[in-house]
Amino acid sequence: MSDVITLTTDFGTEDAYVGTMKGVILGINPDVKIVDICHTIKPQNIFQAAFLLDTVYRYFPAGTIHMIVVDPGVGTERKAVILKTSETFFVAPDNGVLSYVLDTRDNIYPAGELKTVAISNPRFWLSPVSTTFHGRDIFAPVAAYLSLGTSLHEFGEPIPSLVSFPIPKPQHEANSSLTGQIVHIDRFGNLITNIIAADLPEEEILIDISSHHIEGLSSTYADGGELLALIGSSGRLEIATKNRNAAESRNVSVEIRQSM
Amino acid sequence: MSDVITLTTDFGTEDAYVGTMKGVILGINPDVKIVDICHTIKPQNIFQAAFLLDTVYRYFPAGTIHMIVVDPGVGTERKAVILKTSETFFVAPDNGVLSYVLDTRDNIYPAGELKTVAISNPRFWLSPVSTTFHGRDIFAPVAAYLSLGTSLHEFGEPIPSLVSFPIPKPQHEANSSLTGQIVHIDRFGNLITNIIAADLPEEEILIDISSHHIEGLSSTYADGGELLALIGSSGRLEIATKNRNAAESRNVSVEIRQSM
Amino acid sequence: MSDVITLTTDFGTEDAYVGTMKGVILGINPDVKIVDICHTIKPQNIFQAAFLLDTVYRYFPAGTIHMIVVDPGVGTERKAVILKTSETFFVAPDNGVLSYVLDTRDNIYPAGELKTVAISNPRFWLSPVSTTFHGRDIFAPVAAYLSLGTSLHEFGEPIPSLVSFPIPKPQHEANSSLTGQIVHIDRFGNLITNIIAADLPEEEILIDISSHHIEGLSSTYADGGELLALIGSSGRLEIATKNRNAAESRNVSVEIRQSM
Repeated sequence: MSDVITLTTDFGTEDAYVGTMKGVILGINPDVKIVDICHTIKPQNIFQAAFLLDTVYRYFPAGTIHMIVVDPGVGTERKAVILKTSETFFVAPDNGVLSYVLDTRDNIYPAGELKTVAISNPRFWLSPVSTTFHGRDIFAPVAAYLSLGTSLHEFGEPIPSLVSFPIPKPQHEANSSLTGQIVHIDRFGNLITNIIAADLPEEEILIDISSHHIEGLSSTYADGGELLALIGSSGRLEIATKNRNAAESRNVSVEIRQSM
Repeated sequence: MSDVITLTTDFGTEDAYVGTMKGVILGINPDVKIVDICHTIKPQNIFQAAFLLDTVYRYFPAGTIHMIVVDPGVGTERKAVILKTSETFFVAPDNGVLSYVLDTRDNIYPAGELKTVAISNPRFWLSPVSTTFHGRDIFAPVAAYLSLGTSLHEFGEPIPSLVSFPIPKPQHEANSSLTGQIVHIDRFGNLITNIIAADLPEEEILIDISSHHIEGLSSTYADGGELLALIGSSGRLEIATKNRNAAESRNVSVEIRQSM
Repeated sequence: MSDVITLTTDFGTEDAYVGTMKGVILGINPDVKIVDICHTIKPQNIFQAAFLLDTVYRYFPAGTIHMIVVDPGVGTERKAVILKTSETFFVAPDNGVLSYVLDTRDNIYPAGELKTVAISNPRFWLSPVSTTFHGRDIFAPVAAYLSLGTSLHEFGEPIPSLVSFPIPKPQHEANSSLTGQIVHIDRFGNLITNIIAADLPEEEILIDISSHHIEGLSSTYADGGELLALIGSSGRLEIATKNRNAAESRNVSVEIRQSM
């Protein structure tokens, strides 16, 4: 039994797609709590969805079911899957949106604890299944039945591995410097990199970004001036500007699809 | 007793209007689940609200109360109404937002099962009632008391009919072709028409849109190239582009208010 | 015990910050209802957050916990506080976001009923506490424990006063006119002033705005023509245009940060 289903989609908030999925879920499990993570993932951008999911899922209680529907291949041969870690369920298309979960460095799964199933049993689907909205017809009812305690093996057969894309990692250079990438820009314009605290040396740090140099790390956004660097809330090195939008003032944008 | 109240409004998400209505509802029925359908209906656009409602309400469990507050006539003589079908409640201004529900082809109501009440009993309203925010002062408390099991007749007198606008229907032309209209463009840029699957012939289909021809139907968004046509998740013919925004690439926009 | 926690933030809906806080809350109190008030407060704009909060909190049931995270000083020496009125809890940074609550004219608190605590007991925080996301690490868990019935004094020591900014009030002029300011523009383009109904004389009213004159008050948005004035749903004088956006058609904008 799970108390919470979270939703991460690229469905936007202008249509009724998200509401429709919630109706389906509540028709099956009226007691489950549904929490929106984000519905404004850029259309079809599995990289952005995978990153965002990585920043949030650890903060939910054990047993939470995370449903991710960013699904450019809906209706094609791509699989729909359930991934179960020791504490958490993920229900998603098998297209890479779970790449960060699988790659995660701080969560070494004990052997046998990572279970993966390809969803194939239509008993848990809406009927008929459309070819364009598996969020409504497959993922929502499967997540709802999962929240009721239906066993993993009832949904389909185990599969040995999931589709995964390589997570961009910072590179150690010859001059003992480290080159990372900006992997996300948040609403505040903070530039979030793929460099984590553990990557950084103990001694003095000099950060080059574009034509700017930043000396040392700040501890808060209210520190420092033009540009500052700090370890942000997801443990990653961020570049920011005090009470302003660093991305806009520096004219930085990230095309995550390309950079990966 | 109803477990779920859904909200469809043009209140946006920048103000606290939606939150205010939720506070009112939870003050009356702390146990009801409130589900947002959409709050970004274009201001005063009852046509868009009516269409969106049509795509979503069937997916909610029996007994659900759908509250729609797109209400350009708030504070005037327009009525506030409750419509009860065999399974579903609608609470809304009597201005046409329920037109699709009333017109719906796949839901012929048995005689006597469609009940309509004009809300007139101030016992269930906030006091004093503002002239500008009946969502907070009338619709929210009425929906909340309805969810507690208050009988329909306690809210006001039955009325014989509701305000309804004509639903645009596809036209059969002399040359045995069918002319439909685009009635909605979704977040993905898919052009959703008012032609439903049952309108289409069994034999080969040729679709003309703007200066383009599309031969036959695709089954998924990943099929085909420049432009494709398929039956979308609401059973309507859609024009789409694989992993791209057909509306933007074709420079199509819909002014629903005008086209109706 | 509280049934409801509301959230007002400048976190936007593009990132997973809001979802993360909900995960933390539900991990501590799985039964509490979480209601979004607004997450699109302009980044760091405590004035806008304070105003919006003022329009909404009275409509929630007694015992509701309002959590506000608009927090440009996160990680600095600014305090995190709990304010308890006779019926309502507020959990927020001590930076002025509670100014309207403290100033409110229609809610004179009996002596001793207003309790204020500076949050200092790390037993109720996530560990380690980041310097950049106290919404997740401090405010969310404190609100959740508060909803479970934890006593105010367990979170920290009482403090005598909170940071507060002066609320802009309308000015009485020599010629017996009243000069107010526009303090908010809502989604419909209605211009909401700081003049409340009680400020207005009984006799005939003439309103000057920009180079326009409006004679008398309308009672609904559907009244009148080019520009109309009415008492809006928060009890404040509003300037509006029938079924159109007065702010856009009059080219009015409000920079709340400056005007205060």
